[in-house]
Amino acid sequence: MNDQVFMDLLQAREYKAVRSILNVMNAVDIAALMEDLEERDLAMAFRLIPKDKAAEVFTNMDSDQQSALVEVFTEKELKDVLDEMFLDDTVDLLEDLPANLVTRILENVSPEKRRTINQLLNYPEDSAGSVMTTEYVSLKKSNTVAEALRLIKKIGIRKETIYTCYVLENRKLLGIVEAKDLLTEDDDVKMEDIMETKDEIVSVNTHDDQEEVARLFQKYDLLALPVVDKDGLMVGIITVDDAMDVMEEEVSEDIALMGGLRPADDTYLATPVIRHVANRIPWLLILMLSATVTGLILTYYEQAFEAIPVLVSFIPMIMDTSGNCGSQASTLIIRGLALEEIHLGDVFRVMFKELRVSLLVGLILAIVNGIRVLIMNRDPVIAIVVGLALLCSVVIAKFIGCMMPMLATRLKLDPALMASPLITTIVDACSITIFFSIAVAILGIAM
Amino acid sequence: MNDQVFMDLLQAREYKAVRSILNVMNAVDIAALMEDLEERDLAMAFRLIPKDKAAEVFTNMDSDQQSALVEVFTEKELKDVLDEMFLDDTVDLLEDLPANLVTRILENVSPEKRRTINQLLNYPEDSAGSVMTTEYVSLKKSNTVAEALRLIKKIGIRKETIYTCYVLENRKLLGIVEAKDLLTEDDDVKMEDIMETKDEIVSVNTHDDQEEVARLFQKYDLLALPVVDKDGLMVGIITVDDAMDVMEEEVSEDIALMGGLRPADDTYLATPVIRHVANRIPWLLILMLSATVTGLILTYYEQAFEAIPVLVSFIPMIMDTSGNCGSQASTLIIRGLALEEIHLGDVFRVMFKELRVSLLVGLILAIVNGIRVLIMNRDPVIAIVVGLALLCSVVIAKFIGCMMPMLATRLKLDPALMASPLITTIVDACSITIFFSIAVAILGIAM
Repeated sequence: MNDQVFMDLLQAREYKAVRSILNVMNAVDIAALMEDLEERDLAMAFRLIPKDKAAEVFTNMDSDQQSALVEVFTEKELKDVLDEMFLDDTVDLLEDLPANLVTRILENVSPEKRRTINQLLNYPEDSAGSVMTTEYVSLKKSNTVAEALRLIKKIGIRKETIYTCYVLENRKLLGIVEAKDLLTEDDDVKMEDIMETKDEIVSVNTHDDQEEVARLFQKYDLLALPVVDKDGLMVGIITVDDAMDVMEEEVSEDIALMGGLRPADDTYLATPVIRHVANRIPWLLILMLSATVTGLILTYYEQAFEAIPVLVSFIPMIMDTSGNCGSQASTLIIRGLALEEIHLGDVFRVMFKELRVSLLVGLILAIVNGIRVLIMNRDPVIAIVVGLALLCSVVIAKFIGCMMPMLATRLKLDPALMASPLITTIVDACSITIFFSIAVAILGIAM
Repeated sequence: MNDQVFMDLLQAREYKAVRSILNVMNAVDIAALMEDLEERDLAMAFRLIPKDKAAEVFTNMDSDQQSALVEVFTEKELKDVLDEMFLDDTVDLLEDLPANLVTRILENVSPEKRRTINQLLNYPEDSAGSVMTTEYVSLKKSNTVAEALRLIKKIGIRKETIYTCYVLENRKLLGIVEAKDLLTEDDDVKMEDIMETKDEIVSVNTHDDQEEVARLFQKYDLLALPVVDKDGLMVGIITVDDAMDVMEEEVSEDIALMGGLRPADDTYLATPVIRHVANRIPWLLILMLSATVTGLILTYYEQAFEAIPVLVSFIPMIMDTSGNCGSQASTLIIRGLALEEIHLGDVFRVMFKELRVSLLVGLILAIVNGIRVLIMNRDPVIAIVVGLALLCSVVIAKFIGCMMPMLATRLKLDPALMASPLITTIVDACSITIFFSIAVAILGIAM
């Protein structure tokens, strides 16, 4: 579907054609298509979407467009969309809307739904409770397969997922039954005979971090995950599509931190300039001022490079190479910790591995660089000084790079904070000190 | 479940207790529990796992343990496990096993299954074909709901997912029907009346990249994705659990590249030292030799820092700060491109945004640093030189940082290559040149 063709048809008021196009398109694609429409056209186009897709298209729009639509919706239109939307999507919508529109929406849902929404809005941000939905199929252990299927037929279409059903007793979770089993077992089999029981069930607490939620989905290949409150009573479920969004969000957050940025809520282009600046300036300032330390170290060795000015030309190479070695190690450890492939208890194994890796890497780099210096500077003593400095810096850099993320974890900080930018700054100071100490010692410079 | 308790029971040959523990545990957790067992105990423990979980536990083990088990399995044990395993998992298993065991496995599957396995093994690595399974439910458009449910009951239990059924005609995909609809529609409704039709269906080609697969799952909130060959005939499906694994794998790959590493196949601790070195050394060598350029630039300005040695002490700060500015920009753009929030066509919007951001960021940094230099060096001219150099370097660094990933995409390279390490090295040379040109000009140093 060519976007321009659609626009042209809409402008030309060829509503019949527009409607038949919308009729065969996927809701997600329709939402993407609407992104470029102006406010006036938006409402018109939205009204042409087939009734059974309207809520799904609305859910997939960005929050600016949702606001614009809520403002122009009639009471009936608003009610129609809200009735069809999933509860967790409604909560997401409310989190992004201005206050006056929130009121408008809350007035248009049933009192019962309003209570649930308010409850969901109260869970801490990024908690399991904040991403769950309270809509799921609950069964009794005495229900038969036939009864369960009848129940699903009656109410299931409104539940976000009916592929996992929950067997409850006094709101306590006894077991889960997959729709797969309902479809393949005989009619008179009872839930208690086919349900997976408590010990096999993976669940989370309302206040657990959403990162843990994503990890569980990944580990156990789940389609849905039950959420229980502190008394062990079932309060909702998280579905796999929301878990994938959480995964994406958490990865984006880690990558931002690793790039020395405050994580942004919005896309790159949608984030205003002033917000970009606010997200970037804190780390830049901290790191810039920290780099002063390396500057002071250099001032201390002024006599050394006044005596042998060529030493200065090795500063970028020593700084960059040890910085890169440090970031490599920290990247690996941060990722390993995030995937739970590395645990705090592995600290000595990690240290020993990095020691061996860094000795080998350092040796190779020192030899290659030594050869380069010999060719370009024709000075074997300088070649030895630089090579030795490189070897020591690489070992120290890898050590700092692997230990800092583990230290952060120990202190209950996000290990992603200990990525390239910070590691580079710390490693710089070390490598410059090592380089000049070795130079002063070997070249016999009077300090 | 305490691991040690389990080991002790196993050592004490309390098989009854072991069996009842395994009976209530989740297959994924059992696999994790078995990780620490020695080879001899492993086979013994595996034989105590309830029949209906054995294949799932086996699938979740790491490849070393799978090899060990395949070696000691009797023909019957091997057949039992293979019969219960999903085809795509069998293919994954074969990819990791030594050749003699591969032969043993291929001898123990049906000729038909063997053909399919060989076909799946032939798809390029990281292609949609390599992660799909050929097991899915296919229906005719004239089938009724009742017929569909009967068919699922008969064959469904062996299909990896029965929650999305595919309506085919001469192996061409006509539409998809969700199990949800089968469960809620009346018995005599025909597939053609409830199926989502071709235009609404999202599908991939066998040779599409798996990254695209993960993106589609995320975008369309799918549970399964049909895979078609170049003639548009349906050949298999990809399920959401495999898509999540792909997502994780692709993110790990990007993060590795961004940290200046070759992506590793194994976990940090399981990768041997020599492999770690091989993964890290290429970029380190390239970047180390590139840093020589910055060294040469410094040599060119020798007279400048011989005249005013304090200039040297600003090198780390200028290099680090512009390096960090560049990496921030490249991190944002790389992530934006990966999430398809930024497209190649946005190049001028991105450039304009970064220009404004970098002017603001540069100004703030220059002022803060100017104040610091005034306090510590008490030299307003040096403060102006450093401030001006900082402002220019930041603008250039942000420009390089945002353009390089877009250039990489244009050249069909992975934009993640253009992350911190490479950007830092390029930006270093620019910022040092800027700093010394400004210093020479303002301080009137004779060159």
